[in-house]
Amino acid sequence: LSLEKRKYISVVGPAAATCTKPVYELGLELGLCLANKGFGIVCGGGGGLMEAVCKGSKSASGTFEGSTIGILPGEHAHEANPYCDIVIPTGLGIARNILVVRSGLAVIAVGGGSGTLSEIAFAWQLGKPICAMSNVEGWSKELAGKQLDQRHEGSIFEAKSLEDALSWLDQLF
Amino acid sequence: LSLEKRKYISVVGPAAATCTKPVYELGLELGLCLANKGFGIVCGGGGGLMEAVCKGSKSASGTFEGSTIGILPGEHAHEANPYCDIVIPTGLGIARNILVVRSGLAVIAVGGGSGTLSEIAFAWQLGKPICAMSNVEGWSKELAGKQLDQRHEGSIFEAKSLEDALSWLDQLF
Amino acid sequence: LSLEKRKYISVVGPAAATCTKPVYELGLELGLCLANKGFGIVCGGGGGLMEAVCKGSKSASGTFEGSTIGILPGEHAHEANPYCDIVIPTGLGIARNILVVRSGLAVIAVGGGSGTLSEIAFAWQLGKPICAMSNVEGWSKELAGKQLDQRHEGSIFEAKSLEDALSWLDQLF
Amino acid sequence: LSLEKRKYISVVGPAAATCTKPVYELGLELGLCLANKGFGIVCGGGGGLMEAVCKGSKSASGTFEGSTIGILPGEHAHEANPYCDIVIPTGLGIARNILVVRSGLAVIAVGGGSGTLSEIAFAWQLGKPICAMSNVEGWSKELAGKQLDQRHEGSIFEAKSLEDALSWLDQLF
Repeated sequence: LSLEKRKYISVVGPAAATCTKPVYELGLELGLCLANKGFGIVCGGGGGLMEAVCKGSKSASGTFEGSTIGILPGEHAHEANPYCDIVIPTGLGIARNILVVRSGLAVIAVGGGSGTLSEIAFAWQLGKPICAMSNVEGWSKELAGKQLDQRHEGSIFEAKSLEDALSWLDQLF
Repeated sequence: LSLEKRKYISVVGPAAATCTKPVYELGLELGLCLANKGFGIVCGGGGGLMEAVCKGSKSASGTFEGSTIGILPGEHAHEANPYCDIVIPTGLGIARNILVVRSGLAVIAVGGGSGTLSEIAFAWQLGKPICAMSNVEGWSKELAGKQLDQRHEGSIFEAKSLEDALSWLDQLF
Repeated sequence: LSLEKRKYISVVGPAAATCTKPVYELGLELGLCLANKGFGIVCGGGGGLMEAVCKGSKSASGTFEGSTIGILPGEHAHEANPYCDIVIPTGLGIARNILVVRSGLAVIAVGGGSGTLSEIAFAWQLGKPICAMSNVEGWSKELAGKQLDQRHEGSIFEAKSLEDALSWLDQLF
Repeated sequence: LSLEKRKYISVVGPAAATCTKPVYELGLELGLCLANKGFGIVCGGGGGLMEAVCKGSKSASGTFEGSTIGILPGEHAHEANPYCDIVIPTGLGIARNILVVRSGLAVIAVGGGSGTLSEIAFAWQLGKPICAMSNVEGWSKELAGKQLDQRHEGSIFEAKSLEDALSWLDQLF
């Protein structure tokens, strides 16, 4: 067992109802690559992109115990997707979105509607490094490369591909 | 005293550090007009636009006890702006943004940075009617007239003037 | 209209399912007396003792707009008892218990089960002055006069009657 | 790596300022035994009993990655004790107490003041199985064997020794 602390990355994106096939597939690949680089994932624990990234993580050859954390809006752990190693059922409703972005060292956004938008906005408020995928439709594409306000310099990193996102992570850590 | 229930409107916008003069002045007028129409205000209880709208409400000839509610991020009631009749010190940090938009029957956004953006995104998730002022700079202008995602039809109402916003409220209630 | 700020007192006790008649009646009287002394009430906005204290407040000759605040666990304002002037639907579940005790200048406990127990424990952690009624059954009686831990001196005030509780408030403010 | 889901137990007790030596030592042993039985731990991530139980877990021969989860009141992961594998910095203040007890399948209380009391009360509200150590001073001893209210049958299990607590867990799972 590694005694070194794992680094966790928050991954945000659409739930099952609005998750397109390209977003789901990108999520699978992203989860796999993150695990193989030794990163854990924090997400909202639901379906859609959240399920994809957890499934990807658990299918990686380099996966590890505790590689997937799901922070749920509801009260019951069984509502998590089956690929979450660790489940935090908050009972806080959408207020849990804040916990998702606060718990990672950086945030990667993949597609997404207004829920993802709120998570990107919170991540910016918290000063988290943010990477937004622009090769899928949704708020990640809309906000890629933008500065949300002037409370800090810089802007949301635009990743045009999975490789871009992974390079960005490599530079951060 | 009226025994009829008051209607409260959530008003969101920038804190003191980033509140421009036009946003502050629009807030004053908005607060005044809302009180004169019998509406109460729910806001984040801080400075900037939040202070302006509370000050406007308390300066109206039609103001009433309890017309201004401030839901604070911090633990201490004395951190509220002095125009809040009612102070809810949540100790929840920015998670209080959700309570601000949930507590009003409708949401009016005036300017704003990433905090306001998170509030607009939450209001959309909650299905609240949203009015965004487009006559001041900030996220309210950016999102005025837009549909944030397809979880429900319609879009954020664009108010090009205070009159537009008040007409929109009249049509709602 | 008084421009002076109102003082709000948190009142905690059982919901409808477990509220006995003596507790409900004490709540009615307590609400009435608090309003006549100019105090507002913050409570959990539900039935049982919460309803009683709100109803008492609104029935007082000295009642005022905004005299009753209900901070709800659920997402919908219509779940509040009908005597709440101001409703904060948190969507936070029982985490809202903390907001109830944080929002008052002091806490009065009337009867109660494990929910009330959690509120008394939180009030103690927050250093709020606490008055516990010992003339009704429940956790208020169990903890009246006790020191919950040594983080601060003193103990929970034991009120053997409504008069005791009101005298305690008079001494505080 | 085991693909089977780990079971997590919430462990609650005093922070560093009020943690006695017997409580700390019991925490160390408890953490060690839980890990050796394959259980993970959820705690508040701080010092005192929280640190002890995490340290015990990580020192066990049967420890595993992700065996210790710390759910912090503050905003910063570095505030966790160094034995937390997984850190959830909530920024919710003491409202995080609810998340601690909600995230475990059962709750074990060891000593404790008003914070621990609030956690026991919440665990009861949530219907979690609760075990309270009566061989150390604090609220766990006070409430061992008691029924907090009548919302459900049964009572808090009294563990007079670590062996009692472990047998109780064995019977539960």
